[in-house]
Amino acid sequence: MNRSMQRNAVVLLSGGLDSATALAAARAEGFTCHALSVDYGQRHKLELHAANLVAEQLGAASHKVISVDLRLIGGSALTADVAVPKDQHVSIGIPITYVPARNLIFMSLAAGYAETLGAFTLVVGVNAVDYSGYPDCSQEFVDAFIRCVNLGTKAGTQDGHPFAVYSPLVKLGKAEIIRWGTNLGVDYSLTTSCYDPSSDPAGPLACGHCDSCHLRREGFATAGIADPTRYLPSDSHVVPR
Amino acid sequence: MNRSMQRNAVVLLSGGLDSATALAAARAEGFTCHALSVDYGQRHKLELHAANLVAEQLGAASHKVISVDLRLIGGSALTADVAVPKDQHVSIGIPITYVPARNLIFMSLAAGYAETLGAFTLVVGVNAVDYSGYPDCSQEFVDAFIRCVNLGTKAGTQDGHPFAVYSPLVKLGKAEIIRWGTNLGVDYSLTTSCYDPSSDPAGPLACGHCDSCHLRREGFATAGIADPTRYLPSDSHVVPR
Repeated sequence: MNRSMQRNAVVLLSGGLDSATALAAARAEGFTCHALSVDYGQRHKLELHAANLVAEQLGAASHKVISVDLRLIGGSALTADVAVPKDQHVSIGIPITYVPARNLIFMSLAAGYAETLGAFTLVVGVNAVDYSGYPDCSQEFVDAFIRCVNLGTKAGTQDGHPFAVYSPLVKLGKAEIIRWGTNLGVDYSLTTSCYDPSSDPAGPLACGHCDSCHLRREGFATAGIADPTRYLPSDSHVVPR
Repeated sequence: MNRSMQRNAVVLLSGGLDSATALAAARAEGFTCHALSVDYGQRHKLELHAANLVAEQLGAASHKVISVDLRLIGGSALTADVAVPKDQHVSIGIPITYVPARNLIFMSLAAGYAETLGAFTLVVGVNAVDYSGYPDCSQEFVDAFIRCVNLGTKAGTQDGHPFAVYSPLVKLGKAEIIRWGTNLGVDYSLTTSCYDPSSDPAGPLACGHCDSCHLRREGFATAGIADPTRYLPSDSHVVPR
């Protein structure tokens, strides 16, 4: 494998805070980054537009959106016709916003795309600390995925280009992620974390009350960095916990 | 877990010979089978219609088609604008019809769907003997997938319903599969294996010359069972090897 092939990466980019930071970290490591977003029928589609802005701000070499309609699968408040919970204590156990097998599906799509590009590093922004209880955000899952993808692809078997996963945030809390990303030059005003944002001519307005808004706000507060998120005007800007 | 939940399965059904046989085998084992097909932008879309006929003939409880456009990923003669090879000796190594990470993507989608249904058995028709060199058809890959999906899903972690994969064909050759399926009542005239079929008012016409046609024909010949496949009239019906 030549050095330039080693330095190509596919970055799963959601438009949120974590994957933007992972992209910035991969860029800082010298990777040429091809961003991949998934239009999976999510109710918070504004994040696809955010992903595009983030890819551009952080110098991704390309940005592609692949569609897979997980509404057909259902089973989640993010894809089915179920309300997003507001102002609950951040969930015990796996919350209703869990999307069945989401990271497995997304990382599989990233692996297929990466194999076609000749990129053998997958970059993901999973983190297991403030991870809201999602099982597909653990290092153990990522390790099992690497083994699986290297047994199931041409790259990993015949071609001798095994995949690696770069998951730089896996052991960081939200505040640490925000501090690191700020140092790396991430413009967090472009990112969107809200599960239930409103559309606005100047960009998405966050609800301020879903689990994801709470985690984001607390992260900025703990990091001592001004939160650039635009919240719905009715919102009190106080984390009600 | 109650007994009825144990007996629900999601069957990946392509419209081909192998997955039809796997469905019949799962039905014979007593599973309630929910068939899932994937419209991935394949050039041989007639197989989706075949999958529907097969699901009905073999008594699947339901049949769903999920779309994911793997043409965006490219890299295969089955999805990109690359010719399907004809009348070559069945390939050495991984052929150009390999679709990057296909089974990984399909099995991930099946796992998400199965989790929503409360079905914890995934049925796949992979076989490692006449498998045309695809790395994602081995038992080793399937085993690594099970470990990964059980670490990355709510079912496999919090809920204590680990997934199992039933891959009854993994060690069988094409002739053995055809003999078994015939005994199980599979109507192979409904299935389509050709990578490059022609449309015909009475159903698809197989090219007779791609790797998949060669393997299918040899399978029927070796099994001593009449091949119900409708080939293009110009075809000689002789396997040119």
